Amino acid sequence: MVKKRIVLALGGNALQKNGEASAEAQKSIAMSVGRAVANLADKYEIILAHGNGPQVGNILIHEETAASDKAPAMPLETAVAMSQGQIGYWLTQAINNAFIMEGKRHKVVTIVSQIVVDRADPAFKNPTKPIGQFYTEKEAKSLAREKGWTVKEDAGRGWRRVVASPKPIDIVEKKAITELVEEGIIVIAAGGGGIPVYRTKILKRLKGIDAVIDKDYAAEKLAELTKADIFISCTAVPNVYINYGLENQQKIEKISAEEIKNLAKYGYFKSGSMLPKVEAAINFAKKGGIGIITDINHLEEALAGKAGTIITK
Amino acid sequence: MVKKRIVLALGGNALQKNGEASAEAQKSIAMSVGRAVANLADKYEIILAHGNGPQVGNILIHEETAASDKAPAMPLETAVAMSQGQIGYWLTQAINNAFIMEGKRHKVVTIVSQIVVDRADPAFKNPTKPIGQFYTEKEAKSLAREKGWTVKEDAGRGWRRVVASPKPIDIVEKKAITELVEEGIIVIAAGGGGIPVYRTKILKRLKGIDAVIDKDYAAEKLAELTKADIFISCTAVPNVYINYGLENQQKIEKISAEEIKNLAKYGYFKSGSMLPKVEAAINFAKKGGIGIITDINHLEEALAGKAGTIITK
Repeated sequence: MVKKRIVLALGGNALQKNGEASAEAQKSIAMSVGRAVANLADKYEIILAHGNGPQVGNILIHEETAASDKAPAMPLETAVAMSQGQIGYWLTQAINNAFIMEGKRHKVVTIVSQIVVDRADPAFKNPTKPIGQFYTEKEAKSLAREKGWTVKEDAGRGWRRVVASPKPIDIVEKKAITELVEEGIIVIAAGGGGIPVYRTKILKRLKGIDAVIDKDYAAEKLAELTKADIFISCTAVPNVYINYGLENQQKIEKISAEEIKNLAKYGYFKSGSMLPKVEAAINFAKKGGIGIITDINHLEEALAGKAGTIITK
Repeated sequence: MVKKRIVLALGGNALQKNGEASAEAQKSIAMSVGRAVANLADKYEIILAHGNGPQVGNILIHEETAASDKAPAMPLETAVAMSQGQIGYWLTQAINNAFIMEGKRHKVVTIVSQIVVDRADPAFKNPTKPIGQFYTEKEAKSLAREKGWTVKEDAGRGWRRVVASPKPIDIVEKKAITELVEEGIIVIAAGGGGIPVYRTKILKRLKGIDAVIDKDYAAEKLAELTKADIFISCTAVPNVYINYGLENQQKIEKISAEEIKNLAKYGYFKSGSMLPKVEAAINFAKKGGIGIITDINHLEEALAGKAGTIITK
């Protein structure tokens, strides 16, 4: 049997319940995620991408609060790499343990992943993504001068650094990821949307840049580049809805890319929440793949076409 | 031409000059390391292991100093995973850029690596490896009670946590590492000696444990498990010496495992410094491989048998 290849995008919030951010608490949730992913391994080739919002936030808070000359703070791009090691380790171990419990011999690894963005992406002109800790206006403006940060007032809660959220255009490690998944190894990649890098103008060298790549866009790019059959964005709800949370809420099941694109245009999906997932799934469907949005409890059913929101060309 | 397979162990100190620990400073040194490694890629299949002493030390200082209920400190084992992401990213990018500059198409990736130790390793009864920040005696003893740490006075400089340094017995990701290197991809693995994990007694599940695995022992285990031909420990000096630093200092060039083992018994090599490198190389040579100890400037010559200390059965 030729296995279908899936790229599964998992939210960084998925590992934290009630904001419990200790390693123990997150590992414990990772166990159930691990079981859900492991369950799919007999039938599918799996690449797992994950978010890192709360985790990289905490890393930055630690790095910046406790920075000294001897132990300087790591920049955002390196902090993303650190969060890939951290979350990748937890998920790898959890999936591994699920296989051990089931007596299965599948393997799983985490690849530290650099994702190429365009230095000329308009997002760099208009940074919008708040990261790290809150500051007073004075602190924020002083940091902005000192470090070249863009800072903004965040919904009455204080001042924060904001960074660009550029579109992913390539994944440096795509060949290795593809080789591994072809060997039947589950690969965790593009963690936190990937470490943002760009190619320098003349020499085309890779260079890290402080930015945040949307995890669903990154995972969709990963699905394209690894020639996956199915892209799944795994979120907190089993389906995409029209009028979500209202009385006339309506579940979307099977839908064409064109149709759901029109619904998106009408503003039915919240930006920074359901919208990027829908857009990523539309992109993948337009290239001939299947885009699915569902929650972790409906993965198998959705892959069988019996649950979730399924978007096709 | 069948390429020989080498495992190269690089010290974590190799990325820091004069204690300069900023990401910029370390990336800049990684560039020259990257060039040296890239230079070998036409002739050899390469697996690169690296230390993480100063890097994981700073991560722990940040995590512990700035810990809060909302953003708790990560434990050592997870901090090792974070350092693998961090250093792996820097080295991957540096090696990648060296290939770009030379117009070569080789690839390089970092695998987050768990290394299995024995929970019954005697090292756990006698923790010796100091990690993280210095405390007063009072703080240290209070932390020992609170967190179950072992703490010790460190050479008059204050109190520190000490952890066990158990022997590596297996590498969870060995299959993926081998597959990649067979495909001609350079693999960075076992960073910082690997994330220490053990197998639980009955179910044989993997579980992280706070410990520090010696990076040379880990790299040697990696060389065994991936069936490498040559294990190289890359250090600050071009050779192993008898009476190092004394007037009658004597360079060791080619030597048998048995012979250098006898020199080690006489106490010629400093424990925690040259001794683990010599021991790792002896172990590898005894299994029929070639063990080399040299510095980064003599890699090519040493591999050609014309420099470094070369240990064979």
